[in-house]
Amino acid sequence: MAIVVNLDDQRGGGPEPSLEPLQDLVADDLALVNKLILRQMDSPVALIPQLAGHIIAAGGKRLRPTLLLGAAKLCGYGGERHLGLAAAVEFIHTATLLHDDVVDDSDRRRGLSTANTLWGNKPSVLVGDFLFSRSFQLMVSDGSLEVLAILSDTSAVIAEGEVMQLVTANDTSTSEAAYLEVIIAKTARLFAAATRLGAVVADRPKVEEEALEAFGLNLGIAFQLTDDVLDYAADSTTMGKDAGDDFREGKVTLPVVLAFRRGDAGEQAFWRRTVEDLDQRDGDLARAAALMEGHGALSDTLARARHYTQLARDSLDIFAAGKTKDALLEVVAFCAARTH
Amino acid sequence: MAIVVNLDDQRGGGPEPSLEPLQDLVADDLALVNKLILRQMDSPVALIPQLAGHIIAAGGKRLRPTLLLGAAKLCGYGGERHLGLAAAVEFIHTATLLHDDVVDDSDRRRGLSTANTLWGNKPSVLVGDFLFSRSFQLMVSDGSLEVLAILSDTSAVIAEGEVMQLVTANDTSTSEAAYLEVIIAKTARLFAAATRLGAVVADRPKVEEEALEAFGLNLGIAFQLTDDVLDYAADSTTMGKDAGDDFREGKVTLPVVLAFRRGDAGEQAFWRRTVEDLDQRDGDLARAAALMEGHGALSDTLARARHYTQLARDSLDIFAAGKTKDALLEVVAFCAARTH
Repeated sequence: MAIVVNLDDQRGGGPEPSLEPLQDLVADDLALVNKLILRQMDSPVALIPQLAGHIIAAGGKRLRPTLLLGAAKLCGYGGERHLGLAAAVEFIHTATLLHDDVVDDSDRRRGLSTANTLWGNKPSVLVGDFLFSRSFQLMVSDGSLEVLAILSDTSAVIAEGEVMQLVTANDTSTSEAAYLEVIIAKTARLFAAATRLGAVVADRPKVEEEALEAFGLNLGIAFQLTDDVLDYAADSTTMGKDAGDDFREGKVTLPVVLAFRRGDAGEQAFWRRTVEDLDQRDGDLARAAALMEGHGALSDTLARARHYTQLARDSLDIFAAGKTKDALLEVVAFCAARTH
Repeated sequence: MAIVVNLDDQRGGGPEPSLEPLQDLVADDLALVNKLILRQMDSPVALIPQLAGHIIAAGGKRLRPTLLLGAAKLCGYGGERHLGLAAAVEFIHTATLLHDDVVDDSDRRRGLSTANTLWGNKPSVLVGDFLFSRSFQLMVSDGSLEVLAILSDTSAVIAEGEVMQLVTANDTSTSEAAYLEVIIAKTARLFAAATRLGAVVADRPKVEEEALEAFGLNLGIAFQLTDDVLDYAADSTTMGKDAGDDFREGKVTLPVVLAFRRGDAGEQAFWRRTVEDLDQRDGDLARAAALMEGHGALSDTLARARHYTQLARDSLDIFAAGKTKDALLEVVAFCAARTH
């Protein structure tokens, strides 16, 4: 299936923004983090590194650790605490992904079969628990109660957001505010914790800690909103995620919220049948994308994303100009304009 | 179904040992812990307290918090840190139960329908994650890195043990040593952490901390071995757990390990069919219990349990005689002789 929504209309000209400048700046640290991740996911119980290795080594962008390392660099940090914390943040993220894929019955992620498809739901649940515990061990060995408070609070909020999403799943009456609350809890708060920790390890003043937290939070919201749009616009070769997954699972993302509220009675009946009752037929996904187009639901979701990218950019104003700041700003542009 | 194995043959005379003396001694603290548990499992996401309340309020013996409070009392502790840590330990336990029931497809626990039966697997996974995060928040607010290290290490070992059990599930060739490793990781280590923390909060010398850790560890092993026997001996009115659950799920507990290794080729074929292939017919459970009886597998499992209860008892030798010590020793007797 090919649903083509021209995302280029939403962008200015110039070269595609990329994660690469930031990845290059923190490349040495990131290599150490990757080593640490491999060492920490090891266990005499062979299934643990096998399954964890599948989802961790399979790649992903290492976006959260990269942001943490970048924030620490922006703060002029010269120690080593950021390495363990970057691994801890990636473990929290990975544990969440494993449990998410079980809860969503997903069979593809990043272009590969999910762990629950390859090994079943049971090991995915338990290895997720293991990685979550490992992340706490990494934080404990860092030895800062302030860091532990930030990350344990974040974990609780993520879990709360996951349950909230489950409760509102397949509910077309979800409001934009309720949806925003879910993605802040599920996605943006871990981004915020990652960037905030860059300032915390560097022992920077509260104002910088708060600025970096705001940077991560708004970046995370923009990242998720763009993700929601891509699900109706991308194909599996560009995203590594099958386009239409959200629709097939009946996820009520912002494009659905907007299209539903702007639709007439007949359209609302269509959304209830397909997204609430999951009674989907050939052509429904194409019709969903067409309805979204008709109501500007995708372009308006991208406009919302741009609002948050602007907040993210502005939050870095207090930091001096330089390569690291430029690279972080390019991550913002990437998150809002990405096609993968 | 009624499988009657006369456990009384394994016991001395006298009144049935009970948890009550210890529960009475720490009754005020336990009431505070229960309040704290209710407050900490609350969330604006209503499904969280509903589901958590079902499994937590449904009772259970509060054995781990009671042991932590009892150990703190034995150490003469006069502060309040034990309350939050007792709640944290119960949350870790509850999170594990929720995920266990999903992994085991269990439909009954403590005489009630399991959360996964009532609400489905998805909320059980996610609310388990929430309770796990909450337990870390409770530990962080305690503020001791020593405590955090003990409990985060324990959590990782529990998760490792769960995966180990999954890997060896339905495997009749499991050795007694491998089985012991699983129950130490899954069950006994949390008992050990709970009792050890009693000495840690009271800031007692290392020797007392180690003694209480050994007490909990050996008690936990005895508790689990007795549980394994009860599954072939109890009926659902006495255990609140349906007798034969382990058999129906193909769990290779110590009675199965012993009966399999002592059986002839025909018996081993029986165990492979029922426990490995889960091809079970009418009368198979009764035959399993009869084979265990014939080989002394249940009475020998109880003999193993008595070995560990003896180690648990001896580990308390260094503590002065008194009501709290007597009550802890009665918990040992209870765990080895319980019918519920």
